Amino acid sequence: MSLIEDLTWRYATKKMNGQRIPADKLAYILEAARLAPSSSGLQPYKILVISDPALLAKVKEVAFQQSQITDCSHLLVFAAWDGYSEARITRVFNYLTDERGLPRETMDDYKQTILAMYEPLGTEWQAHHAAKQSYIAFALAIAAAAEQRVDATPIEGFDNARLDALLHLTGSGYRSTVLLPLGYRAEEGDWLVKLKKVRTPQADFITELTLADVAAPEDKPLPVASQH
Amino acid sequence: MSLIEDLTWRYATKKMNGQRIPADKLAYILEAARLAPSSSGLQPYKILVISDPALLAKVKEVAFQQSQITDCSHLLVFAAWDGYSEARITRVFNYLTDERGLPRETMDDYKQTILAMYEPLGTEWQAHHAAKQSYIAFALAIAAAAEQRVDATPIEGFDNARLDALLHLTGSGYRSTVLLPLGYRAEEGDWLVKLKKVRTPQADFITELTLADVAAPEDKPLPVASQH
Repeated sequence: MSLIEDLTWRYATKKMNGQRIPADKLAYILEAARLAPSSSGLQPYKILVISDPALLAKVKEVAFQQSQITDCSHLLVFAAWDGYSEARITRVFNYLTDERGLPRETMDDYKQTILAMYEPLGTEWQAHHAAKQSYIAFALAIAAAAEQRVDATPIEGFDNARLDALLHLTGSGYRSTVLLPLGYRAEEGDWLVKLKKVRTPQADFITELTLADVAAPEDKPLPVASQH
Repeated sequence: MSLIEDLTWRYATKKMNGQRIPADKLAYILEAARLAPSSSGLQPYKILVISDPALLAKVKEVAFQQSQITDCSHLLVFAAWDGYSEARITRVFNYLTDERGLPRETMDDYKQTILAMYEPLGTEWQAHHAAKQSYIAFALAIAAAAEQRVDATPIEGFDNARLDALLHLTGSGYRSTVLLPLGYRAEEGDWLVKLKKVRTPQADFITELTLADVAAPEDKPLPVASQH
């Protein structure tokens, strides 16, 4: 098996059958997410795992009643920092240097550099930035699930504020970013499984650029086609 | 090989040796990115591929002189929409329905739903949202490169506005989001290759939640440890 085969196999499962996924497959998927790279290695996110039917039923209420929330085996809730702070960054870097057997001061200059970069951008930008990092882990969890032939549905459609309140994330410094129910497809009830997977054609998706392309005179068309 | 083995093998390569990657491996990595899922299937991003040394030298100038930019084989520049519009969404959905042999009106209600959701959030939010989608493709490109034993360096550290100007993205409706130089490590000159890979410990990264955890009385500690 290869990643391309896995990505071709997977689809955003619209109907799941309630079957449980084995513990070793769940652990594998979570480990792939944990190994994700992140900006400056800060991993400004974590994963909440919910399999309790009573709690899933409550999550479903704030997620437009999507059936996968309760028909899945386990729901992964990705949650990212709501901003950067010296204390948060120091905590991660101290762990890093301790694990590498380096003096904690090793990261001091770098820490000041990123703080100086992030602070003027404001907490809203910082929350978006941390959320973006969580999308890398999210993507690797999707790939890992597909490799394990576990179905998954990437879900952004939910009420973040209400979910944060439900899960007591409000005030914790984390905000929910994306959901990933894991389980098995119920083919007979899934309208999407029968439809062709469609992606942007390669010619539109990829543009090769040379200096000659971008050193064009003003009246030459843009090398990257406009999207208006 | 497995995704976990691939993710364990990879690291943010700090020094590359200039060796070229074969065309089939480059195509494989780009295809994995193209197959990435995205919100509503909009794929609001594309990839610019640069291997021209003269252009790479100019990119390096706006990317803090990071050596991988010029020592890589190919540089991938991920660029996402700077906002959503009815025209952009219609273009994607028309292609989707045409490919699936469905009437174009099939997606009309859904299109209005997402437009109604995105419009009040403003273009800055929309640009962040589109950029987040590009991070999914970015993550899958990283995983694909690792599977092909091609080294890669996820890079956020560059001047987005200056890069957009250099690549004539400004005014195109796209903004650069992340960079991914692809190539081969130069082990002797790479300080990071020798250091232990460190990630948040599992116990901190994963929190299992039940209804009992979140139905806690006010004075019980938050189920998710605070990050302050």
